[in-house]
Amino acid sequence: MRGRGDRLAAGLAERELDLYLVTELTNVRYLTGFTGTNGACVCGPETRLFLTDFRYTERAAAEVDGWETLTIADDWLGGIAAHLRGRFGFEDDQVSVRLLERLRGKVADGVEPVAAGGAVEKLRRVKDELELEAIASASELADEVWRWSVERGLAGRPEREVARAAEARIRELGGDPSFPAIVAAGPNGALPHAEPGERPIGSGELVVFDMGAKLDGYCSDGTRTYAVGEPGERAREVYETVRSAQAAALEAVAAGIGGEALDAVAREAIAAAGHGERFGHGLGHGVGLEVHEAPRLSPRSEDVLAVGEVVTVEPGVYLPGELGVRIEDLVVVGADGCRNLSGLSKELQLVE
Amino acid sequence: MRGRGDRLAAGLAERELDLYLVTELTNVRYLTGFTGTNGACVCGPETRLFLTDFRYTERAAAEVDGWETLTIADDWLGGIAAHLRGRFGFEDDQVSVRLLERLRGKVADGVEPVAAGGAVEKLRRVKDELELEAIASASELADEVWRWSVERGLAGRPEREVARAAEARIRELGGDPSFPAIVAAGPNGALPHAEPGERPIGSGELVVFDMGAKLDGYCSDGTRTYAVGEPGERAREVYETVRSAQAAALEAVAAGIGGEALDAVAREAIAAAGHGERFGHGLGHGVGLEVHEAPRLSPRSEDVLAVGEVVTVEPGVYLPGELGVRIEDLVVVGADGCRNLSGLSKELQLVE
Repeated sequence: MRGRGDRLAAGLAERELDLYLVTELTNVRYLTGFTGTNGACVCGPETRLFLTDFRYTERAAAEVDGWETLTIADDWLGGIAAHLRGRFGFEDDQVSVRLLERLRGKVADGVEPVAAGGAVEKLRRVKDELELEAIASASELADEVWRWSVERGLAGRPEREVARAAEARIRELGGDPSFPAIVAAGPNGALPHAEPGERPIGSGELVVFDMGAKLDGYCSDGTRTYAVGEPGERAREVYETVRSAQAAALEAVAAGIGGEALDAVAREAIAAAGHGERFGHGLGHGVGLEVHEAPRLSPRSEDVLAVGEVVTVEPGVYLPGELGVRIEDLVVVGADGCRNLSGLSKELQLVE
Repeated sequence: MRGRGDRLAAGLAERELDLYLVTELTNVRYLTGFTGTNGACVCGPETRLFLTDFRYTERAAAEVDGWETLTIADDWLGGIAAHLRGRFGFEDDQVSVRLLERLRGKVADGVEPVAAGGAVEKLRRVKDELELEAIASASELADEVWRWSVERGLAGRPEREVARAAEARIRELGGDPSFPAIVAAGPNGALPHAEPGERPIGSGELVVFDMGAKLDGYCSDGTRTYAVGEPGERAREVYETVRSAQAAALEAVAAGIGGEALDAVAREAIAAAGHGERFGHGLGHGVGLEVHEAPRLSPRSEDVLAVGEVVTVEPGVYLPGELGVRIEDLVVVGADGCRNLSGLSKELQLVE
């Protein structure tokens, strides 16, 4: 992971920073490989310093490569402050007001903290081959769990039971859920962030099933909407609207397109079908060490896609009190298109 | 939960605060009952305002009582800022530097943020009857999982398999693990924060088994050390040292004792047995909505115990490269003693 520190260091000069302090643990993991719960990095043109405490000295020796590891014995912030000099960037979107105040009290005279959050998150957007493999494996694992779940049948099972069983199955297969699974049937499907409840899934209902697996630290995220028994005409119509909107958006994914423009492709297709007011969230988001990370695909996004980014494409239509449909794939952005990591069909699947 | 907001409001005058802004979600849950992922409270003598976004309007209606609920449509920070006035306290140990900066840009002229974190955490120390019931239920659930785990035998099973099976069992029984279970056998037991590994548990080894369940939002935390097969003489000696140190500490628990003094009771007993250097962590900590919360029991603690607080009592002795022993109970502090929530024996149990 040495190259990651190099990339971070290379960006400091233009911001007139001498060093960059990384305290957010996912960012620390990204840079160093460290998976413990206390660690920090100090990075600069000549500096690759990883700091942890005595509990993690052995783990750091096993995991961290390309960074000098130091164990801080006692005074954590003082130990960090001792390695800071000049103008150092810090993650102002992560560091608490109190922590910064304390750190200020410990750095030497003339050492100046500069709010500079987001630098590592920006690096994390483009995945390397190992990261893409991990995400693809997590996605395959989740696909297996969708298949396993619908083979068992959905009718009559409480949403919560389906969700908990799927999460348990992810764990049996060696992963962890990347977030609590969403299973939302019938009118509950119209609530994009419904919690699975005790209500049994009824015949004739659509079921929004949103789930992800985490494997080797990397997440997947996807959604399928199933029909339990025979869906009504309206359900079929809404499903096809979402499916063709998603197909159009997938077709449009490529390096260079903006998150706003890509969102608009799906949004306009849904609006053309008369459901423009019923797609109440953004089209997608980046996925990696976190299930939601940069870039964003939404009407407000200023991000532009680049080769190697991994994003969800997940349009939805939600008819309050009635039903919801969301179809979500995870794709790798390429120069002229994308590679879809989802192996599941998007035909409306009728399950028992 | 109306009384909780009253208690928070009652403490504002002495800090010369007009309002208190709560953004930390566990604190929001404590005050209002809200379990979603986006919410904030504004509390003052005449103000009980709960803010959330459109995703959670329905959930808030179901969960929140005694607070006026407002849904912020668009600009989250602006929506909060509109309700702030005068000197308002904020959780400086939680709020990021960037968030405070943005909030400052949105409040009216003359409205002044005051660093005042920890006020709700302080209220959370003393549990009410409903909270005590939830913690006791979580503790009983975990007890059942320890019994279930050792009935299946430990010898020859990889630590990780034992840990993952226990976590799955917690979920089967309707809870969640309050943290990833620790199962550390033989020399691994000497690492207080060991991750369960692939190494099979050997005969003649001690196994440190640290686990907790979460039920209705409330956590339990406990540890037992088991002997697989016949332990050696040294293992028995260390076990009895820890057991009697824990017994002495449990005997000393009562409202009015300091966290430092209580820690010293166990520490001196361990030192008297010649292992003074081998108890490398504090004696315990509060448990509630979080598995680690105030108060702390340690050589540096300035906390004093009060009736209704729930704390762990968990001395340990760790002999590097050899073995570890930790025994941890969860107790409710009373006026003249404590109520032990653990139902497990502390005799050294020999398991297969």
